[in-house]
Amino acid sequence: MRKLLVIGIGAGNPDHMTVQAISGLNRADVLFIPDKGAGKTDLAELRREICDRFVTNPKSRRVEFDVPVRAEPAPSYRSTVDDWHEAIAAIYEGLIRDEIAEDGCGAFLIWGDPSLYDSALRILERVRLRGNIAFELEVIPGITAIQALAASHKMALNRIGDSILITTGRRLTEEGLAGNAGSTVVMLDGKCAFNKLDDRDVVIHWGAYLGTPDEIILSGLLGDVGAEIEKVREEARRDKGWIMDTYLLRKPGEPQGD
Amino acid sequence: MRKLLVIGIGAGNPDHMTVQAISGLNRADVLFIPDKGAGKTDLAELRREICDRFVTNPKSRRVEFDVPVRAEPAPSYRSTVDDWHEAIAAIYEGLIRDEIAEDGCGAFLIWGDPSLYDSALRILERVRLRGNIAFELEVIPGITAIQALAASHKMALNRIGDSILITTGRRLTEEGLAGNAGSTVVMLDGKCAFNKLDDRDVVIHWGAYLGTPDEIILSGLLGDVGAEIEKVREEARRDKGWIMDTYLLRKPGEPQGD
Repeated sequence: MRKLLVIGIGAGNPDHMTVQAISGLNRADVLFIPDKGAGKTDLAELRREICDRFVTNPKSRRVEFDVPVRAEPAPSYRSTVDDWHEAIAAIYEGLIRDEIAEDGCGAFLIWGDPSLYDSALRILERVRLRGNIAFELEVIPGITAIQALAASHKMALNRIGDSILITTGRRLTEEGLAGNAGSTVVMLDGKCAFNKLDDRDVVIHWGAYLGTPDEIILSGLLGDVGAEIEKVREEARRDKGWIMDTYLLRKPGEPQGD
Repeated sequence: MRKLLVIGIGAGNPDHMTVQAISGLNRADVLFIPDKGAGKTDLAELRREICDRFVTNPKSRRVEFDVPVRAEPAPSYRSTVDDWHEAIAAIYEGLIRDEIAEDGCGAFLIWGDPSLYDSALRILERVRLRGNIAFELEVIPGITAIQALAASHKMALNRIGDSILITTGRRLTEEGLAGNAGSTVVMLDGKCAFNKLDDRDVVIHWGAYLGTPDEIILSGLLGDVGAEIEKVREEARRDKGWIMDTYLLRKPGEPQGD
């Protein structure tokens, strides 16, 4: 049976690679490299660098493939994602069938960790349900941007004994800051949702291009640094052509009581 | 100035070590190894194994130290933790002063990631505030048990576009399953809090000793597997003398609408 590895390659610093991920890269005959298109050539370059540095298996081949662009998420975000994932599943199925020998091993390289806001596992589940091709799956965890954010700010994600909500910019805008978590981590926010919060007495720990030489981090009360972060973010995005950022929000001070 | 590294060494599989963590281990002259006492000799052994395998710096020294036992958390969890952390801060201060040369480098080895339910960063902040000793701090992220759980279950932590709440067994018991997160990850649960939830129509993905050869994982509806997990957990804890486990809870099915 074909073997598929889904490998987390870390948040942007090649040194985030784990021993397990390096070994996975070298077990694979074929490395699948998605080309997410426009602007993110730095990321494609970085992924190539990771392969150049860590792949020692002379049999290893790289297959780059195009990922279809997602339609605008309206009216239902999920049904848009549904169509998009089905289209990618068909591509994955073709890659697995055509590029991996029947007893071979292929690997998908995933930024961060395959379990966190990444669709590869969900799409591979679709491929399995399509029933045209059988494969064994193995997942190798990787360092996420959230961990890189906390490391760069030298802080814990949680307050003592308290919860952490990991959410999206979209949900933060719709739902506001949740009351049941001492700390909120926001990912996938292209629109500085933190600046739409009414409460400005909230501490933000923000970071972009985390773990890379271009890393930028900023911290402070939203009322003091919210506008500055938006400005810095927009300038960086314009200069590089893309940005990936994440941030933590927290009411100031340790929680009262327990 | 003294340099301190706080290094995440992964969730129990030595192959979780990152290139950055291995390099950190070898930059340090002194590796601080907490001895958390009774029963967890496997963990101490595993940490020794990690050092034996990855430390190549001939100047490297290991210093094992006792961690005081925490008082029972009543009536206020936070004030108990407060006293406990202050006691550990005094120990850390002594270690840094006595074991690291003034231009030397020491490293604390942390299971999982230093940012997630670990007190080392918070305690080092206390040491800094005591004002007796200056040091430069660097944090190196590591793979957490949450990522190992997701990898072993070959699943994403989040549902499409949805939030994840990371919380404790204590909070789950007090607050029930939160309505604002599609997925809830529970850590630090010594009492099978999942079996106190009224709603049994919840899927659990549970794992213990994640990433180690003793790993156990179980999944299913709480109504079907909740009691079995509690039984398996208790037997494993009795056999080995300790257990570390974590789990994800989620209502069945993908979310309706978006």
